[in-house]
Amino acid sequence: MTGRLDIIGIGPGDEALITPDVRAVLAQATDAVGYIPYVERVAGPGLRLHPSDNRVELDRARQALQMALQGQRVAVVSSGDPGVFAMASAVFEALEGWPEAQQVEIAVHPGITAMLAASAALGAPLGHDFCCINLSDNLKPWALIEMRLRLAAEADFAMAFYNPRSASRPEGFTRALEVLMASQCGERLISFARNVSRPDQTLLTLPLKDARPEMADMRTLVILGNSATRRVGDWVYSPRFA
Amino acid sequence: MTGRLDIIGIGPGDEALITPDVRAVLAQATDAVGYIPYVERVAGPGLRLHPSDNRVELDRARQALQMALQGQRVAVVSSGDPGVFAMASAVFEALEGWPEAQQVEIAVHPGITAMLAASAALGAPLGHDFCCINLSDNLKPWALIEMRLRLAAEADFAMAFYNPRSASRPEGFTRALEVLMASQCGERLISFARNVSRPDQTLLTLPLKDARPEMADMRTLVILGNSATRRVGDWVYSPRFA
Repeated sequence: MTGRLDIIGIGPGDEALITPDVRAVLAQATDAVGYIPYVERVAGPGLRLHPSDNRVELDRARQALQMALQGQRVAVVSSGDPGVFAMASAVFEALEGWPEAQQVEIAVHPGITAMLAASAALGAPLGHDFCCINLSDNLKPWALIEMRLRLAAEADFAMAFYNPRSASRPEGFTRALEVLMASQCGERLISFARNVSRPDQTLLTLPLKDARPEMADMRTLVILGNSATRRVGDWVYSPRFA
Repeated sequence: MTGRLDIIGIGPGDEALITPDVRAVLAQATDAVGYIPYVERVAGPGLRLHPSDNRVELDRARQALQMALQGQRVAVVSSGDPGVFAMASAVFEALEGWPEAQQVEIAVHPGITAMLAASAALGAPLGHDFCCINLSDNLKPWALIEMRLRLAAEADFAMAFYNPRSASRPEGFTRALEVLMASQCGERLISFARNVSRPDQTLLTLPLKDARPEMADMRTLVILGNSATRRVGDWVYSPRFA
């Protein structure tokens, strides 16, 4: 039996946002590897689950490749899209310097990443040029994040922020808001989309100058508009020409 | 009968990338409005098709809202995701200054945007902080595009480029490559993903300094890596720490 490895994204939460492409992978897989809550979402008959804790992405990727080498059909499960701050990069990192594993048949299957679901729920705040920044400094220096925030503000990009604030690093998002205030973004609209696409989804939009760090946690996707982002009724959108 | 308007994204081409959420909208819709090739993709029994030409997004949005006001269940169809350089912004723009239309029930339904499908096909070139720029200057000044390219290069973002090059503006992408070369991006990897997720998909990756404008057309999604983006085997990925 020839193993294979499929790197899949199961979207932000709503089952109706999981693509048929990903469903087909899960129907054929023998093993599912991923962070505990994501693996729980794909549980089903005939699928062995291998849940692991957060922050062990590289170990998890190696485990998945090892199982594929042994002939299993392994699904590596991320929420959202696997290529946006998720498992795809970790798998390719594990592949470097492991020539044997490079024989494994691999495919990456896209998914609805959180910023697209948040943008849809809010209206169209990412309707024009934007950037997407992971605010976690677990794997990169904070100075790099801060530099990117300043330049993105200067470029007048709308911005989507992943992993804005966790219990272990509550101060980072506070600092990010300060950097954006100092970059003349105070009047821009900022939106907090929590538990997006789930029954307990909440949305909050206000000018950045009125935002408080406590409005975000790890279940929140934050979108800062560009200088032209505006409201119409309850919706928030960025015009096509700005 | 109460009309409604659903703004949907039907993904980059592969039918297996259309979400069940969007399929459910299409099953209930009475009318589909959109650019000719996208409306053709959703044709089915009981669905009236209203195809229109490119570059008439605002007229199309008004037509859709008018039909919803008359009691029809209208699907506004974009390829990819409706919130990324697509119809959602045009609908909200049409809604401004038209209070009557603001009574229409509206929902936006996310889809797999081209950069996610291209990234998956290539590996994970958007695996870390990135930006997303529409290279068409139909609706914004070229100087704004150029400023964003320079600042994005300075921020060491990976970059996804939509609408890189059309028959009517062949010179823009040439200029974009020049700006990026002048911004010390010559050694970065650039990928051209054409007809992504379709049977005739093609992928090409090379250093920016060897890229030629003719490698892109309007069916191409272009991804420029950041300074750490690398190859492993046939894959291209951006490490999680850069």
